[in-house]
Amino acid sequence: MTATELPSETSQENNVENNVMQLARQAALAAPALASTSVEKRNQTILQFAEILDRRRAEILEANGKDALNKDAAEFKSGRMAIDNSKIDTVIAGCKALVAMRDPLGAIDYAKELDKDLRLYRVTCPIGVIGIIFEARPDVLPQIAALALKSGNAILLKGGQEVEHTNKVLFACLQEALKLEGLPESSAALLASRSDVAALLKADQYVDLIIPRGSNSLVSYIQSNTKIPVLGHAEGICHVFVHHSADIEQAMAVAVDAKCDYPEACNTMETLLLDKALTEEKQLAILTALHKAGVELRLDSALMSLCNSGLSSKQSPDSQANSQTHSQTPAAISVAEEADWSREYGSLCLSAKIVDGVDEAIVHINQYGSGHTDAIICQDNQAWLNFFNGVKSAGVYHNASTRFADGFRYGFGAEVGISTSKLPPRGPVGLEGLVTYKYKIEGAGHKASDYHGAGAKSFRHTDIEKK
Amino acid sequence: MTATELPSETSQENNVENNVMQLARQAALAAPALASTSVEKRNQTILQFAEILDRRRAEILEANGKDALNKDAAEFKSGRMAIDNSKIDTVIAGCKALVAMRDPLGAIDYAKELDKDLRLYRVTCPIGVIGIIFEARPDVLPQIAALALKSGNAILLKGGQEVEHTNKVLFACLQEALKLEGLPESSAALLASRSDVAALLKADQYVDLIIPRGSNSLVSYIQSNTKIPVLGHAEGICHVFVHHSADIEQAMAVAVDAKCDYPEACNTMETLLLDKALTEEKQLAILTALHKAGVELRLDSALMSLCNSGLSSKQSPDSQANSQTHSQTPAAISVAEEADWSREYGSLCLSAKIVDGVDEAIVHINQYGSGHTDAIICQDNQAWLNFFNGVKSAGVYHNASTRFADGFRYGFGAEVGISTSKLPPRGPVGLEGLVTYKYKIEGAGHKASDYHGAGAKSFRHTDIEKK
Repeated sequence: MTATELPSETSQENNVENNVMQLARQAALAAPALASTSVEKRNQTILQFAEILDRRRAEILEANGKDALNKDAAEFKSGRMAIDNSKIDTVIAGCKALVAMRDPLGAIDYAKELDKDLRLYRVTCPIGVIGIIFEARPDVLPQIAALALKSGNAILLKGGQEVEHTNKVLFACLQEALKLEGLPESSAALLASRSDVAALLKADQYVDLIIPRGSNSLVSYIQSNTKIPVLGHAEGICHVFVHHSADIEQAMAVAVDAKCDYPEACNTMETLLLDKALTEEKQLAILTALHKAGVELRLDSALMSLCNSGLSSKQSPDSQANSQTHSQTPAAISVAEEADWSREYGSLCLSAKIVDGVDEAIVHINQYGSGHTDAIICQDNQAWLNFFNGVKSAGVYHNASTRFADGFRYGFGAEVGISTSKLPPRGPVGLEGLVTYKYKIEGAGHKASDYHGAGAKSFRHTDIEKK
Repeated sequence: MTATELPSETSQENNVENNVMQLARQAALAAPALASTSVEKRNQTILQFAEILDRRRAEILEANGKDALNKDAAEFKSGRMAIDNSKIDTVIAGCKALVAMRDPLGAIDYAKELDKDLRLYRVTCPIGVIGIIFEARPDVLPQIAALALKSGNAILLKGGQEVEHTNKVLFACLQEALKLEGLPESSAALLASRSDVAALLKADQYVDLIIPRGSNSLVSYIQSNTKIPVLGHAEGICHVFVHHSADIEQAMAVAVDAKCDYPEACNTMETLLLDKALTEEKQLAILTALHKAGVELRLDSALMSLCNSGLSSKQSPDSQANSQTHSQTPAAISVAEEADWSREYGSLCLSAKIVDGVDEAIVHINQYGSGHTDAIICQDNQAWLNFFNGVKSAGVYHNASTRFADGFRYGFGAEVGISTSKLPPRGPVGLEGLVTYKYKIEGAGHKASDYHGAGAKSFRHTDIEKK
């Protein structure tokens, strides 16, 4: 290749952009056909897809083996990049469960007769074209593909390059299912390279929603670099506030669960707020329970002095705290910095602070939280009411662990993500988050000019059957 | 003032920003108290507000008179800047109608028992702090303020500087009502200057939604300059597609209504699509009806030749079209440019084009439309179904004028705007658009760790009463 034949970096970028734009355009053109399919056809395609995944198992496992080459085996597994027969079984079972769910499309939640023979309906419909960007886990691909099929959406999939062979085979299974059932193959596309992501984020003319599934930094990058609406959350800074009326055993149990059940999860408690009106004994009991569970504590100065005096009456907090129950070095206790109040640790570490009652707890949570999920532990019903009304987050809990914030636990079946947006969809988002609505009017040649001016007709606005 | 005392431009900008940020922060701090109010208290405050407006009429009219000074009287009136007693009556009647509407807060549309004593509810709640930017019309201020009160939201209001005296008095009435009813006065603030808008758009830490009510350029500017979600639309490029199965009298009547009823409105037809399979006679009849109604036509080449031959059989289209029915110069007919397919005329001008059936109509609308409202005129039910499923817009109509896209006509009562977003809220947005929801969980010390691992408890996911 001579120098003049070498594409410049800019023209390479342009090629990528054109290629992704072309795929996005084709997906947008295929979307109306997908939106018009019956639920029977969509279910049949999902079942077909599940059968093909079952039939092509060996190929999937072989591709995953290829992806594992030259990678650290333990990391490949812990990073959830590995696929085995049991994961394929889970995906297939997920497809069947999705088929059993009711059709999310065509549901009517508002129906009025505006006037004789003029009827208005609000009807659920697909969003259109959804771009899904996921990192390592290849089993996300068939899960999301099945959700998109059920909801009648076209999809552009961008998976992790670490598992590109696996993703290619999984995507080939999807294409085969679409083809066999006569649905447009261009309604799903697989993007290959990292530069495809940047191009996808520019395709706001064709792409209606982006769902990033991955690290906070991936989500933040996407949110800051596209005009397309993004469903998801970058951070989960969840709080537990223990009111002075709390059942202290409950408070200890919930706090430990909220921090320790799965510290890497987004619905894990990152900051514990203790009511000033709690006795010092109770405050200390809660902190001790967490510390005994191996949680590193970053405390405001009041709690730090309490810990120093309280724990030192039994043992030195610096060197020996809980050494009788843990053979390993006890977790550290230190003074929190300002930045710790908005830190998502994602590990067995916790910020803790005294607040003056439910009002100060609300102010703290609304200022430093991420709008994900926050809990109050109390027996006082007025405190719970004030907390529920005052905290702005998508989930506000009473006497329960923040860890319940999850689509499956909420009863939504599959989950596409958790949204911390103020506008819907927010909180854990299931199939319902992949549909929107449009207003349908059926008339008989009705003109708006008949409804104003002299001799104007009146609107009836009568409720009618939602069908 | 010495040179050192003069604030630099930057420090002035900073002052504005700090001031607006301070007002936004105070509004956010007041929001929880507002969210906790009963519907009775909110209704009572709206009625109080209406009474104060009634009592302070003279003051409002005097301020409006001051705003009218040194302005062109006709322009002041046509720009809807003038307020008179009848407008105040309308505002007061609007307040009373709003009080009669049901409480938008606390409605539950999802309720499950997750397990014994663990209940999940999805509950409507205020959005939080809403920034409203409106141009000239001062009666928007009390309308929006009453809507915000009913929905429990804090508001930052920025009105047009042309009517700043009027706005100040109207806002003073609102403050008086809040004070009398014991609601936080900082839950509403009036921003004064144009530079306050830029500062408001940066206050994403405190402001949850921006609603711009004004020109397309205002809305576009706002959409491109803030991270805060914006409810509204910059453009209304609405289409009417006449299918070959259309009742031609209906098609003519609806097309004329959709273009001529109120050409400046966002729900006015901007492009007419005619089915290739319509006879030339019918195509010509529809164009002639529009032209006779005074509509300037910009046509694709096929329709242009049709007009030349068709109209020339009776008269010269260039100089004398319809001269027998109109004494004034007939509207122009010319060939459309590419840019005309995405033009919002806002006047008696129309683009028109031949498309090959419903599929090509869908592609055209999805490509050039703005997602506002589009109609098909047809008797064929399959064509209507395909059109409804295929067109991505917020409103898709059958045999009715696009002009029905309006909150009042839909039966929503007051309207805050029309949204062309793909995600909810979309279409005409009423009170419902000023609320969002959060998930409430009530437990009895429930821990997530009990629901996984060995001996895990199961979720029930039983439907329970929505209360």
